[in-house]
Amino acid sequence: MNSTCEPSRGGDGRDAKAGKDTVRRHNLSLVLRAVYEEGEATRAAVAARVGLTRAAVSSLVEQLLAGGFLSERGKTFSGQAGRPGTALRVADTGPAGLGVEVNVDYVSVCVVDLAGTDRVRLTEHRDNRGVPPKEVLARAARMARRALEEAAGRGLRAVGARLALPGLVSGGSVRQAPNLGWDRVGAEELFAAGLGVLAVGVDNEANAAALAELWFGEAGRASGARSFVYLTGEIGVGGALVVDGSLLRGAHGFAGEIGHLVVDADGPRCRCGSRGCLERYAGQAALLRGAGIEESAGAAGVAELAARARRGEPRAVEALERAGRMLGLAVSGAVNLLDPDAVVLGGVFRPLMEWLGPAAERELAERVVSGLWAAGSGRLRASSSSGDAARGAAAVVVRGVLADPAGHAAPPLG
Amino acid sequence: MNSTCEPSRGGDGRDAKAGKDTVRRHNLSLVLRAVYEEGEATRAAVAARVGLTRAAVSSLVEQLLAGGFLSERGKTFSGQAGRPGTALRVADTGPAGLGVEVNVDYVSVCVVDLAGTDRVRLTEHRDNRGVPPKEVLARAARMARRALEEAAGRGLRAVGARLALPGLVSGGSVRQAPNLGWDRVGAEELFAAGLGVLAVGVDNEANAAALAELWFGEAGRASGARSFVYLTGEIGVGGALVVDGSLLRGAHGFAGEIGHLVVDADGPRCRCGSRGCLERYAGQAALLRGAGIEESAGAAGVAELAARARRGEPRAVEALERAGRMLGLAVSGAVNLLDPDAVVLGGVFRPLMEWLGPAAERELAERVVSGLWAAGSGRLRASSSSGDAARGAAAVVVRGVLADPAGHAAPPLG
Repeated sequence: MNSTCEPSRGGDGRDAKAGKDTVRRHNLSLVLRAVYEEGEATRAAVAARVGLTRAAVSSLVEQLLAGGFLSERGKTFSGQAGRPGTALRVADTGPAGLGVEVNVDYVSVCVVDLAGTDRVRLTEHRDNRGVPPKEVLARAARMARRALEEAAGRGLRAVGARLALPGLVSGGSVRQAPNLGWDRVGAEELFAAGLGVLAVGVDNEANAAALAELWFGEAGRASGARSFVYLTGEIGVGGALVVDGSLLRGAHGFAGEIGHLVVDADGPRCRCGSRGCLERYAGQAALLRGAGIEESAGAAGVAELAARARRGEPRAVEALERAGRMLGLAVSGAVNLLDPDAVVLGGVFRPLMEWLGPAAERELAERVVSGLWAAGSGRLRASSSSGDAARGAAAVVVRGVLADPAGHAAPPLG
Repeated sequence: MNSTCEPSRGGDGRDAKAGKDTVRRHNLSLVLRAVYEEGEATRAAVAARVGLTRAAVSSLVEQLLAGGFLSERGKTFSGQAGRPGTALRVADTGPAGLGVEVNVDYVSVCVVDLAGTDRVRLTEHRDNRGVPPKEVLARAARMARRALEEAAGRGLRAVGARLALPGLVSGGSVRQAPNLGWDRVGAEELFAAGLGVLAVGVDNEANAAALAELWFGEAGRASGARSFVYLTGEIGVGGALVVDGSLLRGAHGFAGEIGHLVVDADGPRCRCGSRGCLERYAGQAALLRGAGIEESAGAAGVAELAARARRGEPRAVEALERAGRMLGLAVSGAVNLLDPDAVVLGGVFRPLMEWLGPAAERELAERVVSGLWAAGSGRLRASSSSGDAARGAAAVVVRGVLADPAGHAAPPLG
């Protein structure tokens, strides 16, 4: 038999091909991410950045252009002698990510392109409490399909979807979402059934929002805070931990539940089963109630609260200061435990920062052992407006494309 | 000029040599760590484990034997056909680590060998409060010199020293150690001055104890808990976070201060400047005071407290249950934030676990959102007796040797 004559050579040949494929896939990602991070770059600049030859980069760029991952943009002069280079950017058509946030009183859906830019956004305010999870997720899937159609009209093709929910998420299921009243709900399956063929992942809503902050917000990108605690004020209070630029998910995926730090051991019962949790004092429901505004007023109620505080209405100001103290108390615990660069407040805390912030900072100044959190340290910050859970969830999908464009090409690259 | 004829060749030759050196250093460590992890292994077993040829491993082993990093032990039959292999172990003479724990009411010094075994141990109980830091560290250095002399008599040669202190440590200095009353003390410099030439590093005491638990205790090695929160009951309460087998140190090295989680916002003033910190309720001083035992009784007082609780004396039992509730309250916060596999209680909590544990577990069952911490879950554990801060600190030094034996050889290897 011929095949027995060269058994190991044949094997080696396959291995060598597999090795070359791996290197090529890796280098495609290297080049694509270099362009993404530069925003706009010539082939020469990419070559200098990634440490490959100009010829190798040109070949990889051709494949990425053909696959629709990159686009070219006019001629750019390098400012140095020699022929002008063409500027490359990541494509604003082609592969995209779908992100869906299902929260207690709204659902928000977005499609982001490879650059992470929000290109289609649909939001519906509606109380999801008391509605069967299946119905909530089916409605979210209908919204998602509308968003995908609109995105398709702009030349965007979603390669995956990610769902963000305010609860403990594990392996595609919601173990518990106290404020939605959900208990062991197979969210991935229910949502995917309504959506169709697209691959779906599920994450905690605060985790997704924290990733948006890390990738697009000031806390991450601009000011260089690579370790931060993220709190998001919703009906409850969500939380997430970013350590050295990555989410700290915990042993079972349940880390970050800062909303359930206890600020008063004998306080009122929380939906989670404990007592005196932070969210009983600083969640949207508690804030509105404390200020004498109807809890069900939702986003309009938050705007009303801010307006009353701006007019100096004592009840509104007091409710916000009390919540700020409780926030400061819980956050000081998180800071003493984790020693982050910053703490970022998102969701409804953002428009209320003017009143919550100073009260929280007083607690931090008194209670953080290191003394690094004195008032005026600037370590307690409002989130940037660019970061929300739907965008973060969608960005997880496109990050997957940046990490392996060859795995997301249609038709295959090369 | 001759040299200009082969400029790049000469350079390449040097690069190639540097590259070969790096590979050799790496492989020396690979082989040494393989023997360390196996406890005892033949050259063939090491080769199988690390994926190098038998010949390469034999050559590396010879160098490690000559450098005193490994020792041989009789002949071992492999149980298979072929000639017997000699069993290798890491040497119990030669390179060693010095660890020193300076705590509020004691100083403990140890020398560990390459296997991490405590070979020399000196402990002095003495109240260090009110004594100038310089004097405390000079005395610790004298103890360390005695330990090093004794170790030298056993053929052990310390290649570095590490100091562990109950406070916030940054760059060799203690920023703040409230229970010692230290504020900005150049501990590394002061200790090194008394010790002589040995390289010294400084770490937080709970961090060092947590590493000992990770490397030598049940929480790490045996049961496979790679993420745990470590609390150590001393005069105060120290804490450390281990995530995926590594210390989480925080942005400035100050993470893990679980002793300053607030369990009662309006509670008594703590030495750190805050109010109602855990250590005001569960530190050794608070425990003894609560049970009506003289605070200055130290270790004897803790033994007395355990004896009284065993006899069922109500005041002792109540003091312990109260401390256990407060521990459970703070620990539930840490668990909700970090979602660890386990929480390990060390220091004086260990002998008092019988009374502290059940009260703490009731809080955890009620307050941890995931519901994974119900009583009987076994996630709250006493530390193993093998782990303390001095041993952990010394082990950091010998881990450095395991990671790069060539860098710690005298005379140089190879």
